[in-house]
Amino acid sequence: MGHEEPLLLPPPPSATTINPSPLTVSVPSPSASASAAPPTSLAPGFRFHPTDEELVIYYLKRKVSGKPFRFDAIAEVDIYKSEPWDLFDKSRLKTRDQEWYFFSALDKKYGNGGRMNRATLQGYWKATGNDRPVKHDLRTVGLKKTLVFHSGRAPDGKRTKWVMHEYRLVEEELERERAGAGPSQPQEAFVLCRVFHKNNIGPPNGQRYAPFVEEE
Amino acid sequence: MGHEEPLLLPPPPSATTINPSPLTVSVPSPSASASAAPPTSLAPGFRFHPTDEELVIYYLKRKVSGKPFRFDAIAEVDIYKSEPWDLFDKSRLKTRDQEWYFFSALDKKYGNGGRMNRATLQGYWKATGNDRPVKHDLRTVGLKKTLVFHSGRAPDGKRTKWVMHEYRLVEEELERERAGAGPSQPQEAFVLCRVFHKNNIGPPNGQRYAPFVEEE
Repeated sequence: MGHEEPLLLPPPPSATTINPSPLTVSVPSPSASASAAPPTSLAPGFRFHPTDEELVIYYLKRKVSGKPFRFDAIAEVDIYKSEPWDLFDKSRLKTRDQEWYFFSALDKKYGNGGRMNRATLQGYWKATGNDRPVKHDLRTVGLKKTLVFHSGRAPDGKRTKWVMHEYRLVEEELERERAGAGPSQPQEAFVLCRVFHKNNIGPPNGQRYAPFVEEE
Repeated sequence: MGHEEPLLLPPPPSATTINPSPLTVSVPSPSASASAAPPTSLAPGFRFHPTDEELVIYYLKRKVSGKPFRFDAIAEVDIYKSEPWDLFDKSRLKTRDQEWYFFSALDKKYGNGGRMNRATLQGYWKATGNDRPVKHDLRTVGLKKTLVFHSGRAPDGKRTKWVMHEYRLVEEELERERAGAGPSQPQEAFVLCRVFHKNNIGPPNGQRYAPFVEEE
């Protein structure tokens, strides 16, 4: 059954199961309780490949509203406490595709127009280009900022191939949430970050995804 | 809990579960037994987005070898018995992204160089361009053929925007399987088909994927 064993978790209790189900309605097994939210190994070909819209309107919006997820796919980290190449280790979804997603507490300075301090121990994330709107239906629900990691210290930092897409909710969207919210009032407390290495970006069937390993 | 309910399946037995797990090690629930292999609704952002390599070396190779899958994602159909726009109904993975995968029995004529009859009731699939090799490690394990659906009858058929990628194993790969195979000898009995509508192809975060519906 070696080929049937998941990558990162002990064999299922019922090792005879031929088609273990990735259904979101399946009952968590003892070895993978939902509350524990252990690292996940998806079956070959299955990927967490969300659209900007899904990241903002589902994952980020629910995070700031304290609403539950059908699957808790995104870990909360202090994104600037790690170097980009160390982040994969903190990702909840374990994949060899070098693209990871995190929630990170929003720097308060952000709110009142100040610049965020995006420095890490060995470098800093520098914004590039303009923020792009993320649309849902016809309205703008979020903003997407692209940042490039520079090693060293500004202004002498060296540009690297590590890239971050930082998503945040627009104030209007938070107002909508607050309007419909119960006791727990949503706060603009988090951003959602996609971190990846530029070399790994290509056409969907190209080098963007890790080569298949038969042991999977 | 409406937001937590899956799209196409009854609510989970344990409706209180906050993070139902798509883990391949999870124990199938009564409402979703592995043998039944019911339609699947993945959590937002999760997609079946396999590489050519995964389709050939994992899904197609295991299918012809009669080996089990970690998750039985691809239904077996007689692909030419349906019009392309009717196929989604037969897909095991229910997604609003208009891209579907199927195994289809291989036309025997295929083997000895003859042309396959790829006609449906209302049209026919016409090959376009050259077959492209699918590589695993450094060897060619499969061939990928692109076909375009034409309505009507050749040579007067009208080109449509329905496209099929047809994957088949190369003979060398089958020999490798036979060499290591047990009692059940693999036969080149199937092709793997990806069917999609051209209008829906775009950058990964663009219109390729269906817009998010909050009810999800």
